[in-house]
Amino acid sequence: MVYVIYFDNAATTFPKPQNVVHAVQEAVIIYGGNPGRSGHSLSMKTAKAIFDTRQKIADFFGCEVENAVFTFNCTHSLNMAIKGILSDGNHVITSSLEHNSVMRPIHELSRRCGVTYDLANVFEEDEDRTVLDFERLINPKTKAIVCTYASNVTGTVLPIKKLGKLCRAYKIKFIVDAAQAAGVLDINVVSDHIDILCCAGHKGLMGVTGTGVMILNNIDGLHTIIEGGTGSLSVNREQPDFYPDRFESGTVNTVGILSLYAGLEFINSRGMDNIYAHELGLCQLLYEELLTIPEVKFYIHNLKKGHKVPVLSFNVDGYNSTEVATYLSDSGFALRAGLHCAPTAHEYLGTKDIGCVRFSPSDFNEAFEVEALVEHIKKIVKSGIV
Amino acid sequence: MVYVIYFDNAATTFPKPQNVVHAVQEAVIIYGGNPGRSGHSLSMKTAKAIFDTRQKIADFFGCEVENAVFTFNCTHSLNMAIKGILSDGNHVITSSLEHNSVMRPIHELSRRCGVTYDLANVFEEDEDRTVLDFERLINPKTKAIVCTYASNVTGTVLPIKKLGKLCRAYKIKFIVDAAQAAGVLDINVVSDHIDILCCAGHKGLMGVTGTGVMILNNIDGLHTIIEGGTGSLSVNREQPDFYPDRFESGTVNTVGILSLYAGLEFINSRGMDNIYAHELGLCQLLYEELLTIPEVKFYIHNLKKGHKVPVLSFNVDGYNSTEVATYLSDSGFALRAGLHCAPTAHEYLGTKDIGCVRFSPSDFNEAFEVEALVEHIKKIVKSGIV
Repeated sequence: MVYVIYFDNAATTFPKPQNVVHAVQEAVIIYGGNPGRSGHSLSMKTAKAIFDTRQKIADFFGCEVENAVFTFNCTHSLNMAIKGILSDGNHVITSSLEHNSVMRPIHELSRRCGVTYDLANVFEEDEDRTVLDFERLINPKTKAIVCTYASNVTGTVLPIKKLGKLCRAYKIKFIVDAAQAAGVLDINVVSDHIDILCCAGHKGLMGVTGTGVMILNNIDGLHTIIEGGTGSLSVNREQPDFYPDRFESGTVNTVGILSLYAGLEFINSRGMDNIYAHELGLCQLLYEELLTIPEVKFYIHNLKKGHKVPVLSFNVDGYNSTEVATYLSDSGFALRAGLHCAPTAHEYLGTKDIGCVRFSPSDFNEAFEVEALVEHIKKIVKSGIV
Repeated sequence: MVYVIYFDNAATTFPKPQNVVHAVQEAVIIYGGNPGRSGHSLSMKTAKAIFDTRQKIADFFGCEVENAVFTFNCTHSLNMAIKGILSDGNHVITSSLEHNSVMRPIHELSRRCGVTYDLANVFEEDEDRTVLDFERLINPKTKAIVCTYASNVTGTVLPIKKLGKLCRAYKIKFIVDAAQAAGVLDINVVSDHIDILCCAGHKGLMGVTGTGVMILNNIDGLHTIIEGGTGSLSVNREQPDFYPDRFESGTVNTVGILSLYAGLEFINSRGMDNIYAHELGLCQLLYEELLTIPEVKFYIHNLKKGHKVPVLSFNVDGYNSTEVATYLSDSGFALRAGLHCAPTAHEYLGTKDIGCVRFSPSDFNEAFEVEALVEHIKKIVKSGIV
């Protein structure tokens, strides 16, 4: 096995904590019954473990247990939320920093049923100006604001609480994509005024892939995009209207969900603030080390606590981001290049042609690994990619 | 740990083969990169493993590799297929033996956009009469037949090849739910004339939960129900139109997919025919042992090879199915009771009030375990449930 220094945690965290690895093994061997489908002991035991995870997730984000819905990835959650809320003729506002997991479902609704949408600008250093730009776009047909908690390209945290208040004031729904923020920043759907929070389970929450979460805050009448067997009210052809069953058709991902339980235990015991401080510290280290090199270009002006998630994108003069990332991969570093599924963010940054190289550390990275990366980037600047 | 004799493999197979358990452990520890998202070595290595599984699935069901789509459960596959094909004003035919994973999405379309549907009868002992009943319901608006390969309640195998030919003759699409048949019966989408085959990954295919498969056979222009980042054509707001990317938005379930690879290896090395013969043999043993007891009621008349999947449902006179299954659970046996998410099947059988107890063995069960079950059922008949 080759030693790789992994800095691609914004795509998926790796390695997973030891207790997560253990939980996955245990889930396959012990929790093999289908939860909520049968009444026998193996099924009930699995159902209890799923419920305990649901409770832990609900506590983590500040919702009632029945409002914590398990999905299969953040994109799945976002599609359920966006298509659950919006219908024919509605208007929706999103931001210039969105991932395709937000842009594509909204664009599809615009094609399919006349939903219209506008993109608000996010101003790096001026939260109030950002909020004003969203407010400017609200019209009588506006049904919702859908935006990211933090950009997967620039790491910029959006003024979520202020946008939540804006939505409350205008009586419109607020859907938030927390793919990059969950497990890193403290999120509470009630105090943040979020109606639907969508998360991946395999990033900051430290579970394995195939897991996502949709957190509902006091929201009724959400349409479904998938219907089927729920193990409840089986005699009815209508999908159940109660939560979470309404949104969990078919067999859930037991292995993934139990890995999430362990992921949350890891976060709670290590301390989310400590994780965030450590990861942001590594970003700051990289930023400071490379800031003096004129050939390295960054797209942000600060890495202030609370204003950025631990994601730092850059380019090296004269190279496409893919060339740099490939060189680094050959040198033993895992960083992602390209557009990161967020083209409008690159339009905004002026990097649509070359993309950017993204550095995203985890709690398991150390300063010496960042120093090693710095040396390799310096080598590119000095000697070029050969 | 308590020893449980597990006969609920139609809900999910348990235990998983040792190589599947091993594959899951390996996936978490080694295949941690996000496939198709980055160009670094860990991501590429995972992408290769996912591709190898896709190829194995494609070979297994007789399709091109790009037409093997990974989903998160069979319900997810069925929703994608049904909503991908049907639109406003279409008519669809399904059977009287369907699971809610077929009934509920169709019913939802009937509510939402005027899709109409009819239920064809399945005749236990007369395949041609079944096919005629489907044919009788075809009208000029009929866009598709959607039906189960085999009932999850009675185990009855539908005349799939004949129905496929019927669909070809009338130029309508054929969507098949193979939740209970995949990994047990030999299915080939080309020779069975199936347009879209939907499977669970965690039943006969022996993977873990959170896995499903949708197999496309020469079918274009399928609508999507979920859009998002695919790692491809990121600059476009439109969902890619090529397969499988079009149907795989967001991060896939690597752990689950690699477990499927191992599951298929297990099936191929053990021999699907051998697995089927063993499991059907256990059903026949139970059937023969209980047939002489007048208080035990069955809902089928034969367990002929090729006509039944290894599922056998029964009731004990005077008891609700749940009472019997609970008693058996307390005695160390895992069997499912109730409606099994298939209410129309119970209407058909006249068991809507009491449901039925379902026996579904796996390759890991042995005859002595069936004998032990027989003893306990005899005890119920003799002494009642106390």
